[in-house]
Amino acid sequence: MKEKRAVIVGAGLVGSLWAILLAKRGYEIDLYERRSDMRQHGYSGGRSINLAMSRRGWTALERAGIRPVIEPHALPMKGRMIHSPEGDLAFQPYGKEGQAIYSVSRGGLNLELLKVAGSYPNVRLHFDQICRKVDVDSNTLTFEHEPSGERHTIQAPLIFGTDGAFSAVRNSLMKIPRFDYSQQYLTHAYKELSIPPAAGGGFLMDKNALHIWPRHQFMLIALPNADGSFTCTLFLAFEGDPSFAQLQTDRDVEAFFERYFPDALSLMPTLLDDFNGNPTSSLVTVRCHPWQYDGRILLLGDAAHAIVPFYGQGMNAGFEDCTILDDLATEYGEDWDSVFTAFNRARVKDGNAIADLALRNFIEMRDLVADPMFLLRKKIAAHLHEKHGEAFLPSYSMVSFSDTPYSVALQAADDQDRLLDQILQIEGISERWERPEVDELYEKWKNSRR
Amino acid sequence: MKEKRAVIVGAGLVGSLWAILLAKRGYEIDLYERRSDMRQHGYSGGRSINLAMSRRGWTALERAGIRPVIEPHALPMKGRMIHSPEGDLAFQPYGKEGQAIYSVSRGGLNLELLKVAGSYPNVRLHFDQICRKVDVDSNTLTFEHEPSGERHTIQAPLIFGTDGAFSAVRNSLMKIPRFDYSQQYLTHAYKELSIPPAAGGGFLMDKNALHIWPRHQFMLIALPNADGSFTCTLFLAFEGDPSFAQLQTDRDVEAFFERYFPDALSLMPTLLDDFNGNPTSSLVTVRCHPWQYDGRILLLGDAAHAIVPFYGQGMNAGFEDCTILDDLATEYGEDWDSVFTAFNRARVKDGNAIADLALRNFIEMRDLVADPMFLLRKKIAAHLHEKHGEAFLPSYSMVSFSDTPYSVALQAADDQDRLLDQILQIEGISERWERPEVDELYEKWKNSRR
Repeated sequence: MKEKRAVIVGAGLVGSLWAILLAKRGYEIDLYERRSDMRQHGYSGGRSINLAMSRRGWTALERAGIRPVIEPHALPMKGRMIHSPEGDLAFQPYGKEGQAIYSVSRGGLNLELLKVAGSYPNVRLHFDQICRKVDVDSNTLTFEHEPSGERHTIQAPLIFGTDGAFSAVRNSLMKIPRFDYSQQYLTHAYKELSIPPAAGGGFLMDKNALHIWPRHQFMLIALPNADGSFTCTLFLAFEGDPSFAQLQTDRDVEAFFERYFPDALSLMPTLLDDFNGNPTSSLVTVRCHPWQYDGRILLLGDAAHAIVPFYGQGMNAGFEDCTILDDLATEYGEDWDSVFTAFNRARVKDGNAIADLALRNFIEMRDLVADPMFLLRKKIAAHLHEKHGEAFLPSYSMVSFSDTPYSVALQAADDQDRLLDQILQIEGISERWERPEVDELYEKWKNSRR
Repeated sequence: MKEKRAVIVGAGLVGSLWAILLAKRGYEIDLYERRSDMRQHGYSGGRSINLAMSRRGWTALERAGIRPVIEPHALPMKGRMIHSPEGDLAFQPYGKEGQAIYSVSRGGLNLELLKVAGSYPNVRLHFDQICRKVDVDSNTLTFEHEPSGERHTIQAPLIFGTDGAFSAVRNSLMKIPRFDYSQQYLTHAYKELSIPPAAGGGFLMDKNALHIWPRHQFMLIALPNADGSFTCTLFLAFEGDPSFAQLQTDRDVEAFFERYFPDALSLMPTLLDDFNGNPTSSLVTVRCHPWQYDGRILLLGDAAHAIVPFYGQGMNAGFEDCTILDDLATEYGEDWDSVFTAFNRARVKDGNAIADLALRNFIEMRDLVADPMFLLRKKIAAHLHEKHGEAFLPSYSMVSFSDTPYSVALQAADDQDRLLDQILQIEGISERWERPEVDELYEKWKNSRR
């Protein structure tokens, strides 16, 4: 049995959570973070400031014991609120009555996780430490203390790379033989903007929805924050027409919002400051394989599978990594060689599946939610689910409201699309969709899947 | 106008060729190579020792002025010679009468290119120099002299990365924003083996063919060398059944060859020495985008598009990079910013296309060439070509015997497959394939493509 000691690289959401779960198992943990201690200096991150927590996220928080701390501040979003160019609103529920995804502050969540991790006597936190090198042969890491430039090395029988999309640990694994890797950028960028709380407190829009202004090749979204404000994100191409490259002057920005998002613009007094002050950021999908090396090094979260944000599953997927890894550690009696092998075998395909689902959801969010045929499709899917229950569980529900593996949800999405394509070809379906042919096609489809 | 000076990193096939073409334009060139000077020490490479030169390769060699030096030693391979498990032979021509691909020695070709490059007074050669760093902001490179460990830096307005599949120049581009990258390994490995010349000189098998022993999940191939020997390559999975992992002892290796390649085994007296002495190597496909940075740095050849060897196009594609780049340099009057932009726009899709075609050809070579339906398919394709000429030019011919862009050849392959799929569904086609329905389907297909 190996010494019960581990280094975790990266004290973001996944690294902090995994430190807690591993600390509960009695491991001596060194948790390294390149940023300063947010418990003293506040949160500073390059990523979106709110998250959509769904079932997989809650499951992990429960295991870490901090669900009761986070839940009171989480804002339920029961569906999408679609804003038309004319300012008309249409609400599309995400699931059944009582189901919602939850807007949660990234900084608040990270801070809470870090506090809990730091409360374990067997967890040592190290801040302002950049991982400069991982020697995969000796399992030795070199860190540089950013203010002083001082370097030190540390060796451990187990290394967990939770250092995000641009992971230094993963970079070191690139040198091992037959390591598959890909990074693919979208041609779209994103920029964060904001809507303030109402003058007397409270929210300027429905607080129980994720707001979307779908405009086909681009979109604006808004998620509620506990203080009454909304964090907005504009997704728009870097170049072309329209694009960020075209929005050079304040007047360009205002004209763009006047034309496409007039109802939002009227709620955004700080638009120009936000637009000029916040970065225009890229969106990347990272895939790799294997996630583990020799039972000694393991990648988790964005380091293993960075995805685009359109399904709201980045954090949820990373947290589920921890839950599944924790289960496997129990199952294999902490024989990490077996644990890592099993985790890699079980989980890589799910990482690839949620990456694909997230890419597809961009099309859905920016484009299809404004399409009448898409709405009809959703209506028929909801009807089939109501009538047939779990036998036709929409893939969104599988992803957000169940623990079904992502790869199974992706397969189900493909299967369901096949059926819905057939149904939508029924003559006159857009006039009347409650008709026997729909049920006939459903039965045939169901039998074909057995 | 920029100073007429460039650094080329890597003096393999593509780097040496590009040095020649750029030297002809009067540029001052520093050509760096990590290996020793093969003009003194002989060729030492990690790659397959012979190549299949086809039209794109010859075009480039002609431009470099060394076709007359290489051609006399090149052995024409007019088609595939398929070896059945029983030792039966079947010859499948690659193209029309007079068309062939040519077996060429990698070392001999590289040496010749290097000699010509070195004969230019404006080309400085540097050997035993490992590229340690490329500063993409200042266009400065750091090299380490391997024997002494001494480092020096060099700055140049133009940097060409011709340093192969594991390119250091490309690694430095990974840091630029929105650089797409992927490396994907096959589950198969390869190992080089050999068949010696006949006792009294000459060849033990037909010297004008590329020999293939297709065995579905694995295969052996052999290419003729000028000295009468053949270089054989075994392609087999790393793990599983059957696999390299199963071939642990000499007896395992012999039994494997006795069972699957008995006719080859009888010609391989050094099988065990070769098998134990030569490495088991992996096969990778590398894709990236963009290939250029800021009109100052450009990737060429394997550094930009490393592909698997099954179409025999790796060198040909790299050489064609040079031809096209040279043409663009003329077209844009050596305004390298425009040249690199145009090259990147025109060529990346062709790099991806030949990568896809090469991956498909593995299936074809190891599997389909032994399938009667595949042979029928090839026969019908040849018939359609004979009858309709360029309107139905088989994709193999487009790739190997024309300058058609690879992306066009890939599209043609897909289109042709569609037609051939339809034809092969004709009732009784395997009994008799010369029938009017074939021509009817062809006409319909041809009209649909207009």
